[in-house]
Amino acid sequence: MKVGFIGLGSMGSAMASNLVAAGHAVTVWNRSEAAAEPLLALGAKLARTPDRAVLGDAVCSMLANDQAVRAVFLDSGLLDAMDPGTVHVNHATISVALARELADAHAARGIDYVSAPVFGRPDAAAAAKLNIVAAGKPAAIDKVRPLLEAMGAKVWPMGEDPVRASVVKIAGNFMLASAIETMAEASTLTRAYGVDAGDFLEVMTSTLFAAPAYQGYGKLIAEQRFSPAGFAMPLGLKDVGLALSAGEGRRVPLPFAGVLRDGLLDALAHGGEDLDWSALALVAARRAGLDGGEDA
Amino acid sequence: MKVGFIGLGSMGSAMASNLVAAGHAVTVWNRSEAAAEPLLALGAKLARTPDRAVLGDAVCSMLANDQAVRAVFLDSGLLDAMDPGTVHVNHATISVALARELADAHAARGIDYVSAPVFGRPDAAAAAKLNIVAAGKPAAIDKVRPLLEAMGAKVWPMGEDPVRASVVKIAGNFMLASAIETMAEASTLTRAYGVDAGDFLEVMTSTLFAAPAYQGYGKLIAEQRFSPAGFAMPLGLKDVGLALSAGEGRRVPLPFAGVLRDGLLDALAHGGEDLDWSALALVAARRAGLDGGEDA
Amino acid sequence: MKVGFIGLGSMGSAMASNLVAAGHAVTVWNRSEAAAEPLLALGAKLARTPDRAVLGDAVCSMLANDQAVRAVFLDSGLLDAMDPGTVHVNHATISVALARELADAHAARGIDYVSAPVFGRPDAAAAAKLNIVAAGKPAAIDKVRPLLEAMGAKVWPMGEDPVRASVVKIAGNFMLASAIETMAEASTLTRAYGVDAGDFLEVMTSTLFAAPAYQGYGKLIAEQRFSPAGFAMPLGLKDVGLALSAGEGRRVPLPFAGVLRDGLLDALAHGGEDLDWSALALVAARRAGLDGGEDA
Amino acid sequence: MKVGFIGLGSMGSAMASNLVAAGHAVTVWNRSEAAAEPLLALGAKLARTPDRAVLGDAVCSMLANDQAVRAVFLDSGLLDAMDPGTVHVNHATISVALARELADAHAARGIDYVSAPVFGRPDAAAAAKLNIVAAGKPAAIDKVRPLLEAMGAKVWPMGEDPVRASVVKIAGNFMLASAIETMAEASTLTRAYGVDAGDFLEVMTSTLFAAPAYQGYGKLIAEQRFSPAGFAMPLGLKDVGLALSAGEGRRVPLPFAGVLRDGLLDALAHGGEDLDWSALALVAARRAGLDGGEDA
Repeated sequence: MKVGFIGLGSMGSAMASNLVAAGHAVTVWNRSEAAAEPLLALGAKLARTPDRAVLGDAVCSMLANDQAVRAVFLDSGLLDAMDPGTVHVNHATISVALARELADAHAARGIDYVSAPVFGRPDAAAAAKLNIVAAGKPAAIDKVRPLLEAMGAKVWPMGEDPVRASVVKIAGNFMLASAIETMAEASTLTRAYGVDAGDFLEVMTSTLFAAPAYQGYGKLIAEQRFSPAGFAMPLGLKDVGLALSAGEGRRVPLPFAGVLRDGLLDALAHGGEDLDWSALALVAARRAGLDGGEDA
Repeated sequence: MKVGFIGLGSMGSAMASNLVAAGHAVTVWNRSEAAAEPLLALGAKLARTPDRAVLGDAVCSMLANDQAVRAVFLDSGLLDAMDPGTVHVNHATISVALARELADAHAARGIDYVSAPVFGRPDAAAAAKLNIVAAGKPAAIDKVRPLLEAMGAKVWPMGEDPVRASVVKIAGNFMLASAIETMAEASTLTRAYGVDAGDFLEVMTSTLFAAPAYQGYGKLIAEQRFSPAGFAMPLGLKDVGLALSAGEGRRVPLPFAGVLRDGLLDALAHGGEDLDWSALALVAARRAGLDGGEDA
Repeated sequence: MKVGFIGLGSMGSAMASNLVAAGHAVTVWNRSEAAAEPLLALGAKLARTPDRAVLGDAVCSMLANDQAVRAVFLDSGLLDAMDPGTVHVNHATISVALARELADAHAARGIDYVSAPVFGRPDAAAAAKLNIVAAGKPAAIDKVRPLLEAMGAKVWPMGEDPVRASVVKIAGNFMLASAIETMAEASTLTRAYGVDAGDFLEVMTSTLFAAPAYQGYGKLIAEQRFSPAGFAMPLGLKDVGLALSAGEGRRVPLPFAGVLRDGLLDALAHGGEDLDWSALALVAARRAGLDGGEDA
Repeated sequence: MKVGFIGLGSMGSAMASNLVAAGHAVTVWNRSEAAAEPLLALGAKLARTPDRAVLGDAVCSMLANDQAVRAVFLDSGLLDAMDPGTVHVNHATISVALARELADAHAARGIDYVSAPVFGRPDAAAAAKLNIVAAGKPAAIDKVRPLLEAMGAKVWPMGEDPVRASVVKIAGNFMLASAIETMAEASTLTRAYGVDAGDFLEVMTSTLFAAPAYQGYGKLIAEQRFSPAGFAMPLGLKDVGLALSAGEGRRVPLPFAGVLRDGLLDALAHGGEDLDWSALALVAARRAGLDGGEDA
C-alpha cells in the first residue's frame, strides 16, 4: 500500500520501519526532519510538509499528545486538504474529548478514520509485537489491516466509534499505573517488616502476578532502577489525567486515579521529572519514612 | 513423618489429604468432628482433643483467623502442653501483631515454629499447587520441608522471623484486592463509553495483565458472576484490615488500602455479605450510576 | 467615579446596584440585555457592546467562568480596545492558568489590573457584605478602593501578583467543599448509630464549628434541603477542579480534593445536576446504605 | 452530692476541681496518687482503691482510653462491687464497641449509666466551659445534672442509648481532624503561589470559618507552632481510628478519615510523635516539596 506516516518519535519510527519492511511504500513526515533519516535509509520517502504525507491509501500518525495532534491535523487545516479516499489511522494516546472531536471532524469531511492506539514500548514496536486496539468503520479497518498487522502482534477490534479505542487505551494505562502503585505500597509494607522488595515481588510476580506489567515494573522497583525512564513521570501524570478527564466526562468516580495523581505530583515535587513512573515506589517509601524515599 | 493437622476447612482438608497421600502418618483435629470424616476414610487418625494432634514430629494448623488461632493455641494452654520437639507449622493468614505474639510464645517455650501462609484457593490446595511462604529457623524449615513440598508447588523462604511470612501474605492479599479494584474502576470507565467490561478486560488480561490474578477475577467481573463467592466480602474486609493494621504498626501509609476498605464497606452496606469480593465492580458501577450497581 | 460593570448575573447585578447606590456613574453590559433592566431603573446606563463599558476610571467584571472571561476580554479583542487609564477589576473565580494569562495580557498592554474575587452569596452581595480579596499594584487597588468598599464589608489585600487573589479564592472554595464533605461523613456516621444529623450538627455548629460555613451548610444537611440549589453541583465540581488544576500547576497533592471530586461525580451520576453541593450528604448516605441516599 | 472521681489527668483534675468548688463532697482516685494532691488541698478526699470512690450518689470517670476504662471498670471487677444506686458518669472518649459493652455491663447489673464525653481542652475544663454530650436514662441524667452543670457550659442530651454519646464525640473529633487537614491542604496550595498560610488563613478564619476549631488550629498552622502539643499525633491517630472502627461497625465508608489516617501515619513516620496533630500541615507541605515539610 501507499502510506504516509506522521510522527517519528521512538514509537513512530519503529512502527514506520515495520511498514517499510513489510513492503509498503511509506512517505514520512516529522516536525524535525532529522528523525526521518534512518527511515529514508530504509527506503521511505520524505514529505517536506504534512500534506505531502496524506496522499496515499492511508496515513498513520503517532503524535505525542493532544496538543500535537490538534496542531497537525486540526489547526493546520490538514484535514481539509485530505482526500476522502485516504484512511487516517491515528495511533496516538489522546483524550476522549479530542477523540470525539477528531471523529466528528473526519466524519464531517467524509474521511475514513480509524482510532488505533497501541500497547507496547519502543522495543515491542520494533519487534512488531504491539497490541493494537482499533475502532472505526469495519471497511476502513479492513482496508488498513495489512498495515496494522505489519506493526502489531494482534489487532483488537473495539467497534465503530473511534472514541472507544481511546478509552480502552486510557483505561489500560490507568491499570498500569495502578499496578505500579500497588507494588509500591505492598513492597513498602513488607520492607517495613524487614522483607526486601525484591524477595517479596519475586514471589508475587512468579505466581499470581506473573504478567508482563508486574514483572517489568516489579523489577524496576526491586532494583530501585528508575533512571533512565522508560516512561517518565510527566507522561504518567498526563495519562492519569486522561483517565480522570474521561471519568469526569461521563460521571465516573475513579478513587484509585485520584491517589495516583497525588503520588505522581509528590514525585514531581521531589525532583522526579526525569524518573520512570515506577518511582512512585520512592513516594511510598518516603511517606513511610523509609530510605530510598529521599528523592522523587 | 508423624504429623498432626489442626483446622479442616476447605483449605485445611485439602492440605491434610495431600499429607496423607504422601505417606505421612496424619492425626487430625477439627472443632466439629464431621469435617474429619473424609480424611479418616483416607487413612488419617482422629484426635478427639487438640493436644492429641500435637504429639508427632510436627503439627500443621490452618485456622480461619486471629480469633481461632488465639483460641486454639494460646487461650487453651495448648502451647504449654506441646513437646518442644514438635515443630508447629502455622498456615493461617493472621495479623502481624498475633504473628509477633505467637513467635514470642513459641520461642519462650523452646518450640520450633514455622510461619507458612499459603497463596492459592482450595482447588490449588487439592492439586498440591499452593505457593507456600515460609519463615522460621532454617533447621525447622528443613525438617518440615517434606510436608510443605507435599502440599505446595513451591516453598518461598522468607528468613527467620516468622512475622516476615505473615506480612508477605498480607501484602499479597492486598495486591489481589487492588487488582480487583483496578479492574472494577477501569472497566466501569470503558463501560461508560460503550465498551463492555468483557471486551476491555480480554485485551488487558491477554496481554500486559496475562496473570492468574487478573484472568480469574477479570472473568468474574466481565460475567458479573459474584455468587457463589470464592472469597466472600467479609473475608476481603478482614484481609484489607490486616494490611491497614500492619501498616499502622510500622507507620506505613497505604492509600490504596483505604480506598479498598471504603469500597468493601459500601458493598457490605448494599447486601454484599455473601458475594465474592470481586463484586467491588458493583460498587464502582453504582458510584457511576451504571446498571449492575444495584446490589453490593 | 465613572465605572463600567460587565456581567449581570445574580452576583454582578447586586454588586453593580451597590455601586450605583454609592453614587458612582455606572455603565453596564451583559450578554443578554434583559438582565440590565433593573439596574437601568436604578440609574445605570446601558452599554450596547462591551467596549462601551470600559471607558471610565474603572471597569468591574463578574463573569461566570474561564470561558466567559476569555470570550469577553481576550478573544473579542476588548483588552486591545481599552484605555490604559481604565483599571480592570476582575471579580470572577477563574483558574490560576487564566489568572496568569490575564495578568500578563493586561501588563503587556499597560492596563492596570486588579484581581478581586469575592466570598459571599447573592444576599451578601446585595447587602454589600462581601469579603473581597484583592491583588494588584497598590496604586491600582487604592484607586478602586471606593468601589470595593461600596460592594464589600472588607477588602483583604493579597499582594501585587493578581494570581494570588485567584488562588486564595480557589483555596477558600475548596475549604467550603471540604467542610460539606466533613459534615456529610460525620453525620452519616452518627445516623448509623441512631443520632439524627440535626441533633449532631447542632452540637457541633453551636460550639467548635460555630461559623457561617458550617451553620449554613449544616442546616441544609440536617434538613436534607438540597433544592433549590444555592450553589449547584456542577459549579462545585468546577470549583474543585480549579483547586486540583492549581495544585497540579505547582505540584501540590490535594487528597481531600480528590475525594471531593469523586463524591461530586457520584452525585452528578445520580441526578444531582440541580441540587446544592451540600447534597454530598446524599452520596455519603448512599455509600453507607442509609435512606436519604436514593438520589444525588 | 457525694461523688467519686476516677482519673485525674489534666482533664479529670480540672473537672473534679469544679465539682469540689461547686460544693460537692468529692472522693478521688487515680492510679498514681501524686496527681490527687492538688485536689486534696482543695478539700477532696482520697480513695486508696477505686472501689472506695464508687460509694456515693455518683462516680464520674475520665480515663485516657479503652484500655484504661476496661482495666479499671471491667477487668478489675469494680462494676460488680458497685451499688446500683450510684450513677456512673463516664466522660472518656472510647470506641463504640466498648461503649456498647459498658452499656450492657451496667444494665446487666442494674447500675445507672450515663455516657458523657466532653468537648474542650484542659483550659475549658478548668473554666467549666466544657460542652458535655450526655446519653443515658433521663432519670439518671437528671440526677447527675448538677454535676454536669458544675463542669460544663452546656449539656447536650443525646437520648437513652449511651453509645449515642460516644459516636457523637467520635464524629466530632473526626470533624476537628478534617478541619486541620483542610487548612493544611488549602494553605499549602496558597503557599505554592506565594501567599503565606497566615495571610490566607486570616481571611478564612475571620469570615466563613470564624469558629474556635479553625481559629485555634489555623493559628498553630500559620505560625508552624506544633510543639508543645496540645493534642499529640498519637492521640489523633487513636481518635481517627475510633471513627474508622465506628464506621466499620455499621458499614459506613469514611473517605476523609482514610486520608487523615495516612497523613497521621506519615507524620509519625517522620518524627511527629510529640507534635500537635495540626502538624498535618507539615505532611501537606512535604508532599508538595515545600519547606516546613522536613519533619513530621
